[in-house]
Amino acid sequence: MKVQEIGEFGLIELLAQMVKKAGCGEGVVLGIGDDAAAWRILASLQLATTDSLVEGVHFITGMATGRALGWKALAVNLSDIAAMGGIPQHALITLGLPPDTEVEWVSELYEGMLAMAQRFGVTIVGGDVVRAPQIIISITLLGKAGLKVGRRLPVLTRSSARVGERIAVTGWLGAAAAGLKLLRSPINGEEAVVSLLKEAHFRPQPRVAEGQILVRHGVRAAIDVSDGLMSDLIRLCQASALGARVWLDRVPVHPAVKAVFGEEALDLALAGGEDYELLFTGKEATLDELKEALPVQMTVIGEVVKDQPGRVVALNSAGREVSWGRKGWDHLAANG
Amino acid sequence: MKVQEIGEFGLIELLAQMVKKAGCGEGVVLGIGDDAAAWRILASLQLATTDSLVEGVHFITGMATGRALGWKALAVNLSDIAAMGGIPQHALITLGLPPDTEVEWVSELYEGMLAMAQRFGVTIVGGDVVRAPQIIISITLLGKAGLKVGRRLPVLTRSSARVGERIAVTGWLGAAAAGLKLLRSPINGEEAVVSLLKEAHFRPQPRVAEGQILVRHGVRAAIDVSDGLMSDLIRLCQASALGARVWLDRVPVHPAVKAVFGEEALDLALAGGEDYELLFTGKEATLDELKEALPVQMTVIGEVVKDQPGRVVALNSAGREVSWGRKGWDHLAANG
Repeated sequence: MKVQEIGEFGLIELLAQMVKKAGCGEGVVLGIGDDAAAWRILASLQLATTDSLVEGVHFITGMATGRALGWKALAVNLSDIAAMGGIPQHALITLGLPPDTEVEWVSELYEGMLAMAQRFGVTIVGGDVVRAPQIIISITLLGKAGLKVGRRLPVLTRSSARVGERIAVTGWLGAAAAGLKLLRSPINGEEAVVSLLKEAHFRPQPRVAEGQILVRHGVRAAIDVSDGLMSDLIRLCQASALGARVWLDRVPVHPAVKAVFGEEALDLALAGGEDYELLFTGKEATLDELKEALPVQMTVIGEVVKDQPGRVVALNSAGREVSWGRKGWDHLAANG
Repeated sequence: MKVQEIGEFGLIELLAQMVKKAGCGEGVVLGIGDDAAAWRILASLQLATTDSLVEGVHFITGMATGRALGWKALAVNLSDIAAMGGIPQHALITLGLPPDTEVEWVSELYEGMLAMAQRFGVTIVGGDVVRAPQIIISITLLGKAGLKVGRRLPVLTRSSARVGERIAVTGWLGAAAAGLKLLRSPINGEEAVVSLLKEAHFRPQPRVAEGQILVRHGVRAAIDVSDGLMSDLIRLCQASALGARVWLDRVPVHPAVKAVFGEEALDLALAGGEDYELLFTGKEATLDELKEALPVQMTVIGEVVKDQPGRVVALNSAGREVSWGRKGWDHLAANG
């Protein structure tokens, strides 16, 4: 059945039922179905982020299942809250849909989102369904900061890096970009490796618990790796008005990316994007502690230095500067 | 200059500057430019709503200026908070833009939004800019309920109407729909009247103060007139599991609509939509009080009755049932 047959209100009713069944509407005073949603909040530092996926720009329906897209749409927002060290709480979901979209596809999209919401304790409080020429998934995610750490603001920001701090990153890099490459032009490779890389593209794992651990251990500066390690590091450095040195031989290139792409692997790790790992800075002692405290691998990849704001230099194992050609994706650029 | 020339980050920087200059970013701990926005909140009943405008579906750029669209995009969200009797506070704004969109147009859009934000004390805390095949404006607006009234929840809901209550509406109806009609097929008419109607279409006045007054006077059920008086009344009655009688001769058809459209005027008032007035129910004594207390005109147009949920009957001056043919706009329907 197509959404034009079930209609706007039929579809909203169906999605509201799914949210209820998944237990993702609990604790809300007024959920889906009134002019606005309502829920009780306590005094806190509120966090909010919003991210959209547009068909033909951020995804092609033939390439991704509804479920994968739903997962990813919420995951990218969760990653933003994670990059602040925050606790995700409430989501509003807007769907733009062509009238001939299959209702089953929309249900699958919601299944993916609800799986993610359940896993991270997110309540779906409401949203909007509008007609559009192509599919649009737009999510606003609200959350809160954890408890105060001493006199500091209990959040991670891009602007708090300090000279002399080390730069670290969670997890492995390059797998999501490699997965996308394989989806676009399949190549022969070991099946398990190929499917792992595609999985990395479709099912990013937002580092929500990790972000909270960083705050508790005194980390102050972080960003999530969405556009690519180097682009996002430049952004963090710009916000902190500092520069950085990256030790290329320390960058945790995902082994599966190396296996499939060989020499190109480092490029994918540096500029590929969509890893949704956390990139952060901290004192050496703090990072040593974190290596134990974090539930995922953590790698020190460089250091914060006094330099032109946003100047990031890549160094090879001999300590010599290496130029790297690519820039992160500028979403509005002509050839973005 | 086109947005692809200034780039995503250049555009965000420009918009952030506009927000700052307009004083619409104040009081925020972290505003535009980090992974998430952050601001302090006190314990309250939080309200949230989200609404989107898609080019080609909800507007045509040739027909509306950027400024008018910006105004309207925020106004429709404010109207949802008004329909809950709430206090609007924080907005997140997502823009989907084709790369060849003029930066000047985007600035004008923001000027319209900022004018509205200033007027209603809304802080722009953040948002997102993405590439899209057509212009999309998606806003999430957060707010809070006012103080508790006795033991009741201090909000207006669609589901709280009671049998025997009168139905009332703020302002005049039909002008926005008449304005749209004139934009689509211009007809000769007195210039001032024509321009008033177009203004009604482009510059809806969300009834934010009025909604809060309703709550304070003990009104419990309300909805805003977005899809059309009858459609929205049906929705309120469905949510309250009751029916309604509407006295057609009492419906406050805008005089300018009557002047231009004659007999068709009542239809535009009943089914035209986009008036963004408040439709609510209350005891006769409450409504008498409100006639004095509200800063805009208020008209009693019918009563809540025990009937099939959502059955709304229109009665003529002789008290006889009149059938009316149109239904509100279902956003996903094939001929919507």
